[in-house]
Amino acid sequence: MNQFSIGVDLGGTNLRIAGVDEQGALVEKVTLGTKVARGRDAVIGDMCDAIQHIADKYKNSAPLLGIGIGVPGIIDMQTGLVRESPNLPDWVDYPARAAIEQRLKTVVILENDANVAALGEKWLGAAKDYSDVAMLTLGTGVGGGLVLGGKIWQGANGMAGELGHTTVEPNGHPCGCGNRGCLEQYASATAVVRMAREAIANNGASPLAQAAGSDPEFSAKSIYNLAIQGDEDARRIFRYVGRCLGIVLSSLVNSLNLPIYVIGGGVSSAWEAFSPAIFEELRLRSLVYAATAPHDPPGNRQGASAHVQPGPGHKTIVTRALLGSDAGLYGAARLPMLAEAKR
Amino acid sequence: MNQFSIGVDLGGTNLRIAGVDEQGALVEKVTLGTKVARGRDAVIGDMCDAIQHIADKYKNSAPLLGIGIGVPGIIDMQTGLVRESPNLPDWVDYPARAAIEQRLKTVVILENDANVAALGEKWLGAAKDYSDVAMLTLGTGVGGGLVLGGKIWQGANGMAGELGHTTVEPNGHPCGCGNRGCLEQYASATAVVRMAREAIANNGASPLAQAAGSDPEFSAKSIYNLAIQGDEDARRIFRYVGRCLGIVLSSLVNSLNLPIYVIGGGVSSAWEAFSPAIFEELRLRSLVYAATAPHDPPGNRQGASAHVQPGPGHKTIVTRALLGSDAGLYGAARLPMLAEAKR
Repeated sequence: MNQFSIGVDLGGTNLRIAGVDEQGALVEKVTLGTKVARGRDAVIGDMCDAIQHIADKYKNSAPLLGIGIGVPGIIDMQTGLVRESPNLPDWVDYPARAAIEQRLKTVVILENDANVAALGEKWLGAAKDYSDVAMLTLGTGVGGGLVLGGKIWQGANGMAGELGHTTVEPNGHPCGCGNRGCLEQYASATAVVRMAREAIANNGASPLAQAAGSDPEFSAKSIYNLAIQGDEDARRIFRYVGRCLGIVLSSLVNSLNLPIYVIGGGVSSAWEAFSPAIFEELRLRSLVYAATAPHDPPGNRQGASAHVQPGPGHKTIVTRALLGSDAGLYGAARLPMLAEAKR
Repeated sequence: MNQFSIGVDLGGTNLRIAGVDEQGALVEKVTLGTKVARGRDAVIGDMCDAIQHIADKYKNSAPLLGIGIGVPGIIDMQTGLVRESPNLPDWVDYPARAAIEQRLKTVVILENDANVAALGEKWLGAAKDYSDVAMLTLGTGVGGGLVLGGKIWQGANGMAGELGHTTVEPNGHPCGCGNRGCLEQYASATAVVRMAREAIANNGASPLAQAAGSDPEFSAKSIYNLAIQGDEDARRIFRYVGRCLGIVLSSLVNSLNLPIYVIGGGVSSAWEAFSPAIFEELRLRSLVYAATAPHDPPGNRQGASAHVQPGPGHKTIVTRALLGSDAGLYGAARLPMLAEAKR
């Protein structure tokens, strides 16, 4: 075995720890439940025990490069403090990095979970051939990550990449972050269910209402199932998801002109239902996309940004993620490898 | 004299050419009118004559590092084609770089005018101490530029930085780019005058209406003058300018977490009238700003993003540009120096 590192994907539900070698091959993976209710010390204990288990088991086979941990929240990279974490409320303003390092008696790299997912897709997934990538992760919330020049773009405080809190509707639905009309309020699983309940309030006899009444786990997935069966209310919701994603992607394309934008997370399984609206918005709203679209069927030219015709240069790709829920785990394992390369 | 380079600021009205040395000192500046109506060949002729004049005059004093030209439009950096240019319509899809190089018999660097303005402010202006900067230029339109790691972030096709075409209102005012509700439609000089005319349509007896009727050059500046005299209609317009800038800046701060954001261009003279609204929106809409605000009077905490308190790390600065209309000229002159350093 080559050198390897240990990646951790700390989620609000699952805690996963994996050894991954330099070629991206899995060494061993441990999946645990995240015992949020038992408090941060218990979660850190479980995490560190699993890290130690993998480190000990392979210490005679290959050198351990380091440990990377994806955390669902905003992390101040200078201090190692978690600044915001809706799913791990008792981690906020807690010196998580120091606590983990003290327990393991070695350094670790903490990073936002959506940032490591972007790095994972860049390393082994949909953006493998690109060094500049933006990724949106559509889950309970909407996470974002930017990889520029092959590395996570952390920004001045390590807080960059919060693409889910881009304003889509200035007077829109209130968001937990304090803003209104964030993308997260229109493109997360939570938002899909909320929009379905709003539709049900308008039409209590619809198939959506029936599904909500009979399905105790009425979720974004149930609504997607209705959409693929042709239910118009459900389809409208996913078109709106796509429209909001398209608005944010258009502004990103105009601002950053990246070669590739990757959409992952649980809601991305509904790609067929929301992606046509993304491309509609991109063609209408982004003059840079219009000039760099990969192909542009004549029927779609109507209303396209001004009179820009796609040019001969790099094409702008908007595509689904490939690694599913493993993106964050592999991205976290990648962190120590990049830190190593920098030395 | 040190080594020097020649920068060109090609505007829709003025054409300015300057020799600038490596320390940023002006060697000589030539200001011409841009004779747009006489066509691109005449404009390129005037430009090249002035470049040649400066190059010849100083050729025995110091080595010429190169020539950088800021062009008001979207430029495809691979091909040297101007892809979009509202102010130079006959330059679109014209191989401008090749035409200029052929005439001068040397290489030149073409770059978007707002990008070079950002580089100028980074080199010698408001962002001098930072290597990562975003700049918005509020003029006839709204230009944008990103400097990351000390260099202009060009994106895959050289089209990055079009921050003026960020969507603020998804169903808002139509923009020349094909989109609706672009920042440019709410924060440019053109937009200020349009919004004033909209206000006049609602109230024909207001001081705004009187000014519009008596002032043959009714402009954003006239409206600003009314605002500082306390006219509520005029003040409301600039508050809306600030609100829209604040919405876009909030999303930029959340996405990129840069240390500094600079606002320049003619409309930025109205800073006092629109900037309070920018900071209001930033505090409300950006959890990253809330965590990194430079100072945060307790009275402003209401409604601030979630419960985030400013942390100890880098502060997020939003400030006025310092170089005025020279930012683009100096930034253009800087281009060959950075290209030189790369070799």
